[in-house]
Amino acid sequence: MDAIDVIRAKRDGGELTPGQIDWAVAAYTRGEIAEEQMSALAMAILLNGMSRPEVSRWTQAMIGSGDRMDWSALDRPTTDKHSTGGVGDKITLPLAPVVAACGAAVPQLSGRGLGHTGGTLDKLESIPGWRASLSTTEMLDVLKTTGAVVCAAGSGLAPADRKLYALRDVTGTVESIPLIASSIMSKKIAEGTGALVLDVKVGSGAFMKTPRDARELAETMVGIGTDHGVRTVALLTAMDRPLGNAVGNAVEVAESIEVLSGGGPPDVVDLTIALAREMLAAAGLDGKDPADVLQDGSAMDVWRRMISAQGGDPHAPLPVARESYELTAPSAGVVTRLDAFGVGVAAWRLGAGRARKEDPVSFGAGIICHANPGDKVAEGAPLLSLYADDVSRFPRALEALEGAIEIVDEGVPDLDPLILDRVSA
Amino acid sequence: MDAIDVIRAKRDGGELTPGQIDWAVAAYTRGEIAEEQMSALAMAILLNGMSRPEVSRWTQAMIGSGDRMDWSALDRPTTDKHSTGGVGDKITLPLAPVVAACGAAVPQLSGRGLGHTGGTLDKLESIPGWRASLSTTEMLDVLKTTGAVVCAAGSGLAPADRKLYALRDVTGTVESIPLIASSIMSKKIAEGTGALVLDVKVGSGAFMKTPRDARELAETMVGIGTDHGVRTVALLTAMDRPLGNAVGNAVEVAESIEVLSGGGPPDVVDLTIALAREMLAAAGLDGKDPADVLQDGSAMDVWRRMISAQGGDPHAPLPVARESYELTAPSAGVVTRLDAFGVGVAAWRLGAGRARKEDPVSFGAGIICHANPGDKVAEGAPLLSLYADDVSRFPRALEALEGAIEIVDEGVPDLDPLILDRVSA
Repeated sequence: MDAIDVIRAKRDGGELTPGQIDWAVAAYTRGEIAEEQMSALAMAILLNGMSRPEVSRWTQAMIGSGDRMDWSALDRPTTDKHSTGGVGDKITLPLAPVVAACGAAVPQLSGRGLGHTGGTLDKLESIPGWRASLSTTEMLDVLKTTGAVVCAAGSGLAPADRKLYALRDVTGTVESIPLIASSIMSKKIAEGTGALVLDVKVGSGAFMKTPRDARELAETMVGIGTDHGVRTVALLTAMDRPLGNAVGNAVEVAESIEVLSGGGPPDVVDLTIALAREMLAAAGLDGKDPADVLQDGSAMDVWRRMISAQGGDPHAPLPVARESYELTAPSAGVVTRLDAFGVGVAAWRLGAGRARKEDPVSFGAGIICHANPGDKVAEGAPLLSLYADDVSRFPRALEALEGAIEIVDEGVPDLDPLILDRVSA
Repeated sequence: MDAIDVIRAKRDGGELTPGQIDWAVAAYTRGEIAEEQMSALAMAILLNGMSRPEVSRWTQAMIGSGDRMDWSALDRPTTDKHSTGGVGDKITLPLAPVVAACGAAVPQLSGRGLGHTGGTLDKLESIPGWRASLSTTEMLDVLKTTGAVVCAAGSGLAPADRKLYALRDVTGTVESIPLIASSIMSKKIAEGTGALVLDVKVGSGAFMKTPRDARELAETMVGIGTDHGVRTVALLTAMDRPLGNAVGNAVEVAESIEVLSGGGPPDVVDLTIALAREMLAAAGLDGKDPADVLQDGSAMDVWRRMISAQGGDPHAPLPVARESYELTAPSAGVVTRLDAFGVGVAAWRLGAGRARKEDPVSFGAGIICHANPGDKVAEGAPLLSLYADDVSRFPRALEALEGAIEIVDEGVPDLDPLILDRVSA
């Protein structure tokens, strides 16, 4: 087979055959298809699309480029969640223990943040001692003893995706729904989960800015999961404003612990419970109500065991940033807008996120929102607290917040509902 | 500026700004834009197109990546021709001396053959002693003393195009009209000619298979030439059957000499005269009729001086292939088809062309067509003579000819007229 023939077929609007897809992904992984050939193919895919059979086969080929994990040794069903990324999205932290406390096993391979959206591993690493890298044997041990594990994906998982993602990142070919969907799903299917709930974020702080694009991505991913025998459901959820009040690393861990203690911001609690119900239903479990395990302390018990099992001290004080800055309301009124993207970029610039993969993050950096859309505020009342390790971080973070907050004399915010839609097979 | 921003702008259907184009071409030439980024951009250009201002600016940037030649030291106007490539297309060989004999200067930088279409330099190199590489000073000398020079482009001419062409060749991004047009025109404009006639081939043996595509390419190139102050005209000419009877290297030189002697196949003579008239008109010369200089021997005089000036011996015997094979008519009838592509591939496989840039060509290899579409043939009459240096070449050449020749009891061939159309500013 020839790379140019495959590129031409997609360029000319044709459907790639299973043989072409299998060969292209395998040949690219072993370096036989050059980077400049794959980037031309990726651009042709971005512009001409892929059918459901094509995108399923492409995903299968990426899974086949590496290992597929197997949790059949467990005595309970596996179920997992994946979020497409947002601002203040710490949901995995309370969700994994909640679902484990209800009887399922959660084998979550997670990622780090890049750009204005945070990464689950960065957040968990703010807990003293906690480590993200586990061997497969260690993962199985943690799953058996606690019911949930959240850790980094090893290099053996979908290596084709790792190589392709790095290429797309520098060639303007990230924004392709088939390529995004196959990238996410290849890792999640290789992870070996039996059921999967996708949290597809919609709005300024999300990768998908419109419900239409988000629905297309959700439908594509649900199709891929279903074609691979994974019971897959997607929720489209709001990301026009931050989720919860805390945006950063340690501050999000603290907020998650509030939720696990039976409190916490209502949107974080509601979304945790909604996703937990979907995960349990997809796994065929209906014995326990997720809302109950948050109240009776059993989810918190799982959390503590899960953190300890990965070397973390669940009782240790969390890192705190050296410097803080308070942004106050310039006038009294109603907060009608708190833009997720603006807050996300500000937190990133404060040090909570990274610009390049190899950059460190500041665990203490971030933002606490004191007022949410719909809240009335007095003149001079605190709106946001900004945290950073260095005061030089504040000016550029404040720049990102310009226009992100709207306060009017009277009015009602025009907000998306927390859960916009549900997509199933 | 950032490569990803430029790629995204074109990917999303936008028009690139002059600043983006200048930067992209320059940064790619100096290696600052990676190959995989340029191939993604090339695919986006192929699929989303370029406006006339974009393609003119892109061409200008490619010219600007290297030297632009200057013939103002000459006492006569310069005019040149470029063919998009065909089978049996030896027209430059009689044409350049004809136009020089009529009072213009022809500074032609030409290329080598790749695939089933031949290259002018390969043909001329079959003349013992003739050399393709000249310095600019030597070019000027030959032009001054003979009025015509045909030689290889030096590496200082449009280096951006050379780099981009090699990339397009392996990334399925050759077939883009703006990229083809800017590639051709960047070299022709950098060559410094004041007037230019484009011979855009149409048909099975040509790069453009349909008049519609050929017209689009012609209009794009005429637009670019005009925007750069070069008086540019294009003819769309037939390439459904080979041009003339000879296809190869030395065999085409021999046929060209027949034309310069006042004989030769009518289609070669007619096209030579038509293109010469266009070249002279574009250069503002109307003193001599090209048909006359073929008959009075003055074009032949220029040819001999031109070949001698580049080291060739115009009187030396031309190379002859060691082996030959005669294909005869299986039945009596009328030849209704002699497919240019089939004949071109057969000549290529006989050794007249090359599969890779670094391959040598056989000067003696090729085909002589004894019957043309419209001719009546008896059973067993010779149709084609095949020439090669090794008998092992014949079977695969004959395979390429399967279905290329059609003989029917009675009938009239459905042929394109030699000149299908004319495109001017």
